[in-house]
Amino acid sequence: MLLKVKALHLLAGRPIAILHEEIARYLNLHVGERIKIKRYGKKKEIVAPVDLTGGKTILNKDEIALSQEIFKNLKLRSKEIIEISPALKPLSVSFIHKKLDGQTLTFTEIYSIISDIVNNELTEAEVAFFVSSVYLQGMNFDEIASMTKAMVKTGYQLKFDKPITIDKHSIGGVEGNRTTPLVVSIIASAIDQLKLKAVMPKTSSRAITSAAGTADVIETLAKIDFSINEIKDIVKKTNACLVWGGSLGLAPADDKIIQIERILSLDPEAQLLASILSKKLSVNASHVLIDISYGKGAKMSNRSEAEKLKHKFEKIAKKLNLNIIVALTDGTQPVGNGIGTILEMKDVLAILKQDKDRPIDLENRALYLSTKLLSFVTGMSEKQAYIVTKGILISGEAYKKFEQIIEAQRGSLRNIENKLRLGKFKQDMKAKQSGILKEISNKKMARIARLAGSPADKSAGIYLNKHIGDKVKKKETLFTIYAETLAKLHYAQKVAERVMPMVVG
Amino acid sequence: MLLKVKALHLLAGRPIAILHEEIARYLNLHVGERIKIKRYGKKKEIVAPVDLTGGKTILNKDEIALSQEIFKNLKLRSKEIIEISPALKPLSVSFIHKKLDGQTLTFTEIYSIISDIVNNELTEAEVAFFVSSVYLQGMNFDEIASMTKAMVKTGYQLKFDKPITIDKHSIGGVEGNRTTPLVVSIIASAIDQLKLKAVMPKTSSRAITSAAGTADVIETLAKIDFSINEIKDIVKKTNACLVWGGSLGLAPADDKIIQIERILSLDPEAQLLASILSKKLSVNASHVLIDISYGKGAKMSNRSEAEKLKHKFEKIAKKLNLNIIVALTDGTQPVGNGIGTILEMKDVLAILKQDKDRPIDLENRALYLSTKLLSFVTGMSEKQAYIVTKGILISGEAYKKFEQIIEAQRGSLRNIENKLRLGKFKQDMKAKQSGILKEISNKKMARIARLAGSPADKSAGIYLNKHIGDKVKKKETLFTIYAETLAKLHYAQKVAERVMPMVVG
Repeated sequence: MLLKVKALHLLAGRPIAILHEEIARYLNLHVGERIKIKRYGKKKEIVAPVDLTGGKTILNKDEIALSQEIFKNLKLRSKEIIEISPALKPLSVSFIHKKLDGQTLTFTEIYSIISDIVNNELTEAEVAFFVSSVYLQGMNFDEIASMTKAMVKTGYQLKFDKPITIDKHSIGGVEGNRTTPLVVSIIASAIDQLKLKAVMPKTSSRAITSAAGTADVIETLAKIDFSINEIKDIVKKTNACLVWGGSLGLAPADDKIIQIERILSLDPEAQLLASILSKKLSVNASHVLIDISYGKGAKMSNRSEAEKLKHKFEKIAKKLNLNIIVALTDGTQPVGNGIGTILEMKDVLAILKQDKDRPIDLENRALYLSTKLLSFVTGMSEKQAYIVTKGILISGEAYKKFEQIIEAQRGSLRNIENKLRLGKFKQDMKAKQSGILKEISNKKMARIARLAGSPADKSAGIYLNKHIGDKVKKKETLFTIYAETLAKLHYAQKVAERVMPMVVG
Repeated sequence: MLLKVKALHLLAGRPIAILHEEIARYLNLHVGERIKIKRYGKKKEIVAPVDLTGGKTILNKDEIALSQEIFKNLKLRSKEIIEISPALKPLSVSFIHKKLDGQTLTFTEIYSIISDIVNNELTEAEVAFFVSSVYLQGMNFDEIASMTKAMVKTGYQLKFDKPITIDKHSIGGVEGNRTTPLVVSIIASAIDQLKLKAVMPKTSSRAITSAAGTADVIETLAKIDFSINEIKDIVKKTNACLVWGGSLGLAPADDKIIQIERILSLDPEAQLLASILSKKLSVNASHVLIDISYGKGAKMSNRSEAEKLKHKFEKIAKKLNLNIIVALTDGTQPVGNGIGTILEMKDVLAILKQDKDRPIDLENRALYLSTKLLSFVTGMSEKQAYIVTKGILISGEAYKKFEQIIEAQRGSLRNIENKLRLGKFKQDMKAKQSGILKEISNKKMARIARLAGSPADKSAGIYLNKHIGDKVKKKETLFTIYAETLAKLHYAQKVAERVMPMVVG
């Protein structure tokens, strides 16, 4: 059937077609059923579920309204004639059923599901069934490897012209743990000094449930949203980058699956593994460090859980011919002093500038990871590698490299006090008794920082005056909350008083 | 925030709000997140997920477009001022997560989920998670009873002023098995003759995957879509009815859940039990017959499966104080000669009129069920009850009662040849060899009848010339396909030749 396109500029986040109900009745189509859409006389098709409209308010009978996703995908112009026809349910739905019934899927079957997710051919309910099936039935190593490959193949890839591409990923739920800018600066500087044929093109995400993500933090000083070609330029200049991966289309199925997982805060392990490894394969990484933090309140609650996950990473990476090492680190409390976008950048700069009051725990963590990575890439002993990375940090070379990256990303380290000004309003949270600080909850700190406005308000967050093991005197400040408005400060403070993120005993 | 309503007459099958993207940015709302909507100064709220639009094509910044469901629910007029605010995720989402993790839910938790489904507060993806959790984790008897009660309480109920309310339900996947109009006519006539203080207000569904449903079949001769008050009038006149239950709002959660189940053709047993029992409780049934057909190709593939299901029905009905008996019947082949809307009505009329060539298998099935039910209601022996039901059928009393019901439902049995005319095009399907008819597939017959046009084309379907055990000669007609268009006939015929719904050996 031929219809005239009407542009409603509808952003539905997915393809949506709105048909006149008389046309739908004629085609025996019901709300939510699918149609195939193509430009008249062209081949390229897109599938979309239909909503219906009656009367003539937005559509005449011979018109169809399409969401912006479809306009973009088919390069449509308003009032253009398009052809529609009822579409069958995609074959991948039967593979989802198969998985739900506990059967093992082949690569072809998994590829069909992932590719339909990427092309918006599955509805949210269908993706929810897929997520449930993976959550409850699990996936074996071959299936996870297949899912990882399928996620890579259905997205864009980044390839650099050096033989070695270095990458890292931290899994944790550990607040304040902003090692990435430090590790990237140290390793990129080591690449220069040791004349390694290597690059470290780091793509990071924004915060989802934590107070800040690396992309948010870097954005306080530089641009983070670049095209693939711009990233290649930045990496050519500096051997590294610190950009946002969100708009690059690397393993795009991942984002769509995570969006559905977030409905129930599900995080199936198979999906976690495929998600991380697919991003690394998409940048053609040759040497990858996976940092798994464990401890009460972290994603992995004890060492044996972390060991199990490490083993799975190694097993699947082997199937994918991906060269990885896994480090296990302490995740019982936040790392560094700042929690929140600007507060975390201040920690990073203090370490790069080797300020006297820099957070030593974060510095040691960054050095530990940089050392592991450098030894992994070069084959030198960890002892030797530590001398190199420590030297790079102390000498100010890491700071110089960081400045170089920030400038390549159209930012600068000038006028830093203005850029990194903290929230207008602050509240010191004091100890109600003397004793030793026994516990700091990552999750509660994240919640309080987010209520204070982080990451949208870059200046909001929490400064930790104390860490686990510190002596505390009654009425001494334990931590300080920063916010942009008095309302947010009060709200964060009230919740902080109720949930008690620090335990003194 | 206050906005002006713009009516787009959008039928989305669920509440949907379309906001201008600048307003969404201001409220920090993303596509798919929820808002609360109410008329300015009023209390009643409805929750809806948001889609966004840019530009000014359909909305100014101070306007909001809402789907018809919201207009109806809040009784809105166009250009009215409404108040919106971001809404939290409903609490029931956490109970869905709990079930997905294999935990047992309380009545309150199940009620919260079911009530949110009915009020459209859960998205399709969230309902899909619920369906997956029930499918994979199952429910214990208490949970199924809770779900049944919750489904009843969140819908309308029908109550009649006689102490006995009789109902039946057949589970089968057995084609042509149109016992309901016969059983209702026989039992309603028995009520008159034995002066029982009873009614049999039967509500039925339309076909979903079968060739026809009882509601479709009755619609060939009478109206089936009535309000609750109209149904009470019909039942007052005739002690029975044969109406469509779809628009009455009895246990409405059921329909919404089934809509999501259909995506993967899932049919969790807990949902099957709750679905059937909730409809019976919603009409305040005091005596219910559940007829479970079993055999190769039926829903229950063997007797022991059917026995297990029977036991579950009995156990849950006891928890719900619902008085039921369960009959197990043969489901290995279609029952009667006709498969399809008009063809099945012809079978029913042939039996009521005691025509010589009436389908005896369907008559016996209907007598068997009527006898069980009458004995159950009155306490008389099955032998005695059989004499009564058989007498009612042979004497023409059942036919009279059927006519009375049809007329009360604004139909008539006059001019029947015209009303029950078969498809313009037909094709005899012949035996390729001589032998005995060994097998008839219910599923394949349903598929062929639907391809021929049933149930939308009332005159389309299949007439069976042979049943299992019959002698067949080469080139003898096995069955005949009827259709309204040559294209549909050819398509159905081609598939029939390929899938071979009858096996001669």
